Amino acid sequence: MNKENFSLRDIEMNEKRVLRDAIHDYIHVDHLVIWHLINSQEMQRLRRVKQLGGTYQVFQSAEHSRFVHSLGVYQVVRRMLETECLDNELNDYDKLCVMCAGLLHDIGHGPFSHSFEGVFKEDHENITVRMILEDSEVHNILITVHEDLPTDIAAIIQHTHKNQILIQMVSSQLDADRMDYLLRDSYMTGTTYGQFDMSRILRTMRICDGKIVYKESGVQAIENYILARYHMYWQVYYHPTARSYEHLLQSVFQRVKDLFSEGYSYKTDLKYLLPFLYDELTVDDFTRLDEAVVLYYFREFMNEDDFILKDLSARFLNRKLFKYKQLRNQEELDDIKHISSSLGYDPRYYIISDNQKQVPYLHYGESGELSEIEILSPSGELSPLPSKSEIVSAILNSKLYKSDKKVFFPKEIKDEVCVL
Amino acid sequence: MNKENFSLRDIEMNEKRVLRDAIHDYIHVDHLVIWHLINSQEMQRLRRVKQLGGTYQVFQSAEHSRFVHSLGVYQVVRRMLETECLDNELNDYDKLCVMCAGLLHDIGHGPFSHSFEGVFKEDHENITVRMILEDSEVHNILITVHEDLPTDIAAIIQHTHKNQILIQMVSSQLDADRMDYLLRDSYMTGTTYGQFDMSRILRTMRICDGKIVYKESGVQAIENYILARYHMYWQVYYHPTARSYEHLLQSVFQRVKDLFSEGYSYKTDLKYLLPFLYDELTVDDFTRLDEAVVLYYFREFMNEDDFILKDLSARFLNRKLFKYKQLRNQEELDDIKHISSSLGYDPRYYIISDNQKQVPYLHYGESGELSEIEILSPSGELSPLPSKSEIVSAILNSKLYKSDKKVFFPKEIKDEVCVL
Amino acid sequence: MNKENFSLRDIEMNEKRVLRDAIHDYIHVDHLVIWHLINSQEMQRLRRVKQLGGTYQVFQSAEHSRFVHSLGVYQVVRRMLETECLDNELNDYDKLCVMCAGLLHDIGHGPFSHSFEGVFKEDHENITVRMILEDSEVHNILITVHEDLPTDIAAIIQHTHKNQILIQMVSSQLDADRMDYLLRDSYMTGTTYGQFDMSRILRTMRICDGKIVYKESGVQAIENYILARYHMYWQVYYHPTARSYEHLLQSVFQRVKDLFSEGYSYKTDLKYLLPFLYDELTVDDFTRLDEAVVLYYFREFMNEDDFILKDLSARFLNRKLFKYKQLRNQEELDDIKHISSSLGYDPRYYIISDNQKQVPYLHYGESGELSEIEILSPSGELSPLPSKSEIVSAILNSKLYKSDKKVFFPKEIKDEVCVL
Amino acid sequence: MNKENFSLRDIEMNEKRVLRDAIHDYIHVDHLVIWHLINSQEMQRLRRVKQLGGTYQVFQSAEHSRFVHSLGVYQVVRRMLETECLDNELNDYDKLCVMCAGLLHDIGHGPFSHSFEGVFKEDHENITVRMILEDSEVHNILITVHEDLPTDIAAIIQHTHKNQILIQMVSSQLDADRMDYLLRDSYMTGTTYGQFDMSRILRTMRICDGKIVYKESGVQAIENYILARYHMYWQVYYHPTARSYEHLLQSVFQRVKDLFSEGYSYKTDLKYLLPFLYDELTVDDFTRLDEAVVLYYFREFMNEDDFILKDLSARFLNRKLFKYKQLRNQEELDDIKHISSSLGYDPRYYIISDNQKQVPYLHYGESGELSEIEILSPSGELSPLPSKSEIVSAILNSKLYKSDKKVFFPKEIKDEVCVL
Repeated sequence: MNKENFSLRDIEMNEKRVLRDAIHDYIHVDHLVIWHLINSQEMQRLRRVKQLGGTYQVFQSAEHSRFVHSLGVYQVVRRMLETECLDNELNDYDKLCVMCAGLLHDIGHGPFSHSFEGVFKEDHENITVRMILEDSEVHNILITVHEDLPTDIAAIIQHTHKNQILIQMVSSQLDADRMDYLLRDSYMTGTTYGQFDMSRILRTMRICDGKIVYKESGVQAIENYILARYHMYWQVYYHPTARSYEHLLQSVFQRVKDLFSEGYSYKTDLKYLLPFLYDELTVDDFTRLDEAVVLYYFREFMNEDDFILKDLSARFLNRKLFKYKQLRNQEELDDIKHISSSLGYDPRYYIISDNQKQVPYLHYGESGELSEIEILSPSGELSPLPSKSEIVSAILNSKLYKSDKKVFFPKEIKDEVCVL
Repeated sequence: MNKENFSLRDIEMNEKRVLRDAIHDYIHVDHLVIWHLINSQEMQRLRRVKQLGGTYQVFQSAEHSRFVHSLGVYQVVRRMLETECLDNELNDYDKLCVMCAGLLHDIGHGPFSHSFEGVFKEDHENITVRMILEDSEVHNILITVHEDLPTDIAAIIQHTHKNQILIQMVSSQLDADRMDYLLRDSYMTGTTYGQFDMSRILRTMRICDGKIVYKESGVQAIENYILARYHMYWQVYYHPTARSYEHLLQSVFQRVKDLFSEGYSYKTDLKYLLPFLYDELTVDDFTRLDEAVVLYYFREFMNEDDFILKDLSARFLNRKLFKYKQLRNQEELDDIKHISSSLGYDPRYYIISDNQKQVPYLHYGESGELSEIEILSPSGELSPLPSKSEIVSAILNSKLYKSDKKVFFPKEIKDEVCVL
Repeated sequence: MNKENFSLRDIEMNEKRVLRDAIHDYIHVDHLVIWHLINSQEMQRLRRVKQLGGTYQVFQSAEHSRFVHSLGVYQVVRRMLETECLDNELNDYDKLCVMCAGLLHDIGHGPFSHSFEGVFKEDHENITVRMILEDSEVHNILITVHEDLPTDIAAIIQHTHKNQILIQMVSSQLDADRMDYLLRDSYMTGTTYGQFDMSRILRTMRICDGKIVYKESGVQAIENYILARYHMYWQVYYHPTARSYEHLLQSVFQRVKDLFSEGYSYKTDLKYLLPFLYDELTVDDFTRLDEAVVLYYFREFMNEDDFILKDLSARFLNRKLFKYKQLRNQEELDDIKHISSSLGYDPRYYIISDNQKQVPYLHYGESGELSEIEILSPSGELSPLPSKSEIVSAILNSKLYKSDKKVFFPKEIKDEVCVL
Repeated sequence: MNKENFSLRDIEMNEKRVLRDAIHDYIHVDHLVIWHLINSQEMQRLRRVKQLGGTYQVFQSAEHSRFVHSLGVYQVVRRMLETECLDNELNDYDKLCVMCAGLLHDIGHGPFSHSFEGVFKEDHENITVRMILEDSEVHNILITVHEDLPTDIAAIIQHTHKNQILIQMVSSQLDADRMDYLLRDSYMTGTTYGQFDMSRILRTMRICDGKIVYKESGVQAIENYILARYHMYWQVYYHPTARSYEHLLQSVFQRVKDLFSEGYSYKTDLKYLLPFLYDELTVDDFTRLDEAVVLYYFREFMNEDDFILKDLSARFLNRKLFKYKQLRNQEELDDIKHISSSLGYDPRYYIISDNQKQVPYLHYGESGELSEIEILSPSGELSPLPSKSEIVSAILNSKLYKSDKKVFFPKEIKDEVCVL
């Protein structure tokens, strides 16, 4: 089949479906291929992977999964395609590609993804692409429509597709992914920080020089979106208690890995983790690993002989999180590790420091051309967002990007650590 | 210590805590005992038990846990205690009892509770009471405050407490439990059905003859609440796809149990389920069983030799739910079972019928005096809600309680079933 | 021009416009004729006529005008036209007619409309039709598109149009008018009562036998809508303080009229009221009368010699509303009038009684066929809503329609009245 | 009576009242003096003065009055007083003063206040103070409680009160006035821009050195609030169409004044405007002037002989607003005035330019000490907000405050003006 002649109408469902959603009201499914993808095991697995990792330890009600977020990204892509400018610009084949890319962009996320990736060095984008290209349910669904569909979708996700518009829609500084997660995480946490005016941003979208740009009348709405992101990062995503939870997780994973390489004899049958420990991973191995399996292992680990593994797992399951304090410098960290050691807590697992930074906006050149949000003036000229936004410009010039350096440690040694 | 002299102020925390919540904005924790209960393993386990069982298969975004609902019930109880009438009526000891009862009322819920209870015959109220009275983390926290606290809280939950007001607050037709779940489930599903005016209902609360009653000016708000419940039941809780999911779950549990009693030799190590299969359950056994463990077993069951167990588990994990149709009568059900059998699907597990009913309001006498919501007229007389509400009265008199009889079956035999 | 060949595309604006709205997010204006109608003096006058009359005396924040409501009705009509069933059913000319009818349906409302109509006997539907058909800015805008447009729009508003679908969209038991006002009044008052699931209702709309009907899966959403209306009536629209305000207004209008017919010599220049007093009203006379003019007169009346007019006007402007009590029977009313008289308050103006009733649902036959909401079963049969809704049926059978009989009187005679 | 011994409990109402509000849910009235103030003619007059002047010409649904905003400010003050820190810090007399100041702070606003003040040079703060101190209904209500109450409230409003905390609550960079209007205007316009986390800001409030300061954990919420204000200014308050409306109003007022001083003989009876034209204004004169009266005059002016007055009034009532374009410099403005003149439009009334600026944050020293928001570190030190907020600091250092220079002119000369 010729991609140019491909028609979405030909693959429309007789009875279109809708899924009710708290953020977008309805998620519309018009094409059977989308419906089949949603019901594939790779997508259904995301039901068992939480969107916000440990954040629900602070924002109790934010218990949503990567599955609902993925539906949301698909729906935002769908709304973008309904705008006059994109509707006219893209052919039906590309429209299908970008809807699938939005839906599937997260399927390679592991359980508790950041901590897990940190220890097992699996990159979720890489896994996502493998799941689309290799033999999987998702792959097999896609090729029933067109043999190139997997490759073209993967190209969007890997930023190598020749049509930059498709890449921008799914992965850029102002994309369907970020739009959905800000609105959704804000709603689910019950904070106001992440709210912004998506309708207006979409209304000011235009195509110019083969890229998505925005009319000048949208600058304020974009500013608002950038600040929404900035505040969500500091108030929600980087909340110290959420980081504490991630660090505890990472320590468990690290201990599992270290014991394994030391030849420790596990009581627990590690079968679902073995491919990760041997670093010989198939797409099937990955699909089998979700947060339910990991939580099951954590429960089992409470029966292991190794004290550290046992102790960390119990802390995790019963929410005995690490405490934390601001970290001044390397010496202080060394001192804390020394204390920890002397009190019987192996600092490799019990003392973790991090330094969170968040760059509210990436200017031209900082990470490639794509990062720039470009503004179209009434007279038809393009300029980078900072030259049209006093707020964004002020933030960029100040070079005062906020950073936050903290050290995390067991409650039991709090008194000793805090006298430092 | 004398209960009469007990003072909440004496157990207040130095720095009071708040937990952010999407429904109540903040959940306030003023007392250390509440904070410790929240962090107990019995409460934290509720994080791994979904509030709505299978409903999130229809209402995608309703993925919240029984844990956040329990915090919400506690917060509604706390708001009730702030009303002038209850603040004056109750002593500090009773206030603490009812806050704890609100928080703990659901700790006895099993994983996927309705399906699980249906097969293993464990009553969640009974387990809740055992967890409070027997040796558990929760129990040990409670007795540090007062040795009678577990017994008094259990009495509230079991409807045997001598002070009816406390029972009404936690478990009646208009209680903190229902108020939180309607608001929360409505918010999380993104439907409007469950919204009602809680502020107004609380404002019209009064104490009369040792019971909670409501001023006449609150009748409309209460009507609205009763209809909100009615609509949430039919639109959300009894949605056929959600029921399909519950039935599939129940079939897996039933097959597990039947195979066990037939002496089938499991490859899977069933240790966390054994106490339920032998029906010799300790509080610890129960605490260890959450939805992560059950989901892990379902994954393992896909490797068992028994075809039925294997097949049902795969259907469950990958969302190949049963289809359904309206059921006319017993003969039709028999016919469907016959077809199922002849096509190789054991009807004990593959053909399930149910008949959902929902009584919007329980009138005086139908389930004991407590069920009645009583209205206080300006002149001080009490009357049952139906005599003051045309809508509730109309519903009661009609005796036309809605019911919905459906049969569920595998997609594979849909054509054969639907010609009937 | 032939109506059949008329194309909306031909009258599309180059740059479509949107108006921001708190209820519908955006109100979309695609056609110049709609834009001109919005900016006509007849529509702009509605800015100076409040939607809820006196209700904002109770629900402080509900200060919105009939103008924003009219925009909202137009937008709901527009959304209806986007549904597949109506998009296919109607030709472009009828689509334009019904959008205009939605927008213009309220232009004949007088200032403080119910009280005003009560005294001056002007029917707002009648005036609306006159303003569309006679020489007005609105009329002149319409005929630029098609000479029949005014007549066809008027026929929709008067329920005489041959296409019942158009009538149902604008004026039936489930129409764009009611949908907008429930959502809007609920939002503006800050109550939850009027919320319902408009998206779902629109999704279940179908055309059958030349009428709008609803799929069975929409019954619960419609039930919810009917009860929303019922509760909004009793909690908001019929709130006694709002009625007190309306009665005070009506008394002022009545006194103005009575004094005029008695030949009283006004200090105030009544020019804008004269056409109403002489009952010789042109469309222009009507357009000139808005709430600003009436409020100006009330201020002037405080300087008149007639004590009653002076007193009532001052009560109105400075919110010294009448008090009220439940009315038992005619004798009690007579007694109250007698007291009032003897204390120097003319009962014609100072003692008002009313009896509010609200019929939650009109069954087939009660006010013509159109009133029935019809439900389409999966097998294609139509049945009236009550046969498919236990709740609606229960309400109908009970014949217990709520009614509320009250008498209103000046605060100054409260003690004397209340001993009765 | 001694102010120190004054007890709020002594003036509590038997039955406390609540007013339903869309923003704060309920506005609580506990004291009779507050109830009487709300019902005074000076407060009721604010019902007839719109909060947002001409903004509802762009944001259609923002039709709310200064009256509901004033209730909201009172309610925010009330919530502030419920925080532990303020509850402990202030005595009952001061609490009453600041509640009254919050409620009354806007009573001196004229109709369409900014345009009106611009022409008639009445300062609303000055009038507010006169209305509190001179013989008015409000004044007479206040002195029934304490003879000093008017003076003390006026001192808060005029920033001369000795207790800075009271001033900060009602009028500072982070006060009850701004908090209410951001939330309310955002809700009423249907934009998300003005939402911020008031609960969190109030929770981090502390008293230090006799001032209100904020804990460091509140910095992000305050940043968010400052940016909410910034965006509301540019998206809503300074919207060019809203400014166009204000300028048209101002031209009408200016023409009225100029004609009066030229001795023009008015057909219209200007009595309510005369005190303003003669600049001999009593508190009563002011109370009589509301937007209804002004709108009445505008209708009358359409019958005047003066063409300019007639024309401008008709443009205003029927929404024929001025068009606008960016203004480059003084020469361009001169050219435009010249064109206007030559086409018969007197540039004094038909050509208006403005230059909107908005300073998102006032740093220490820029307008006195009070302007600074101060942050309390965990170790007890105070520092100005910008030193704790990278965003606020970046904005301050950039000195790139946004400004917007526009010129407004009649649509009729658009072609001629736009070729410039």
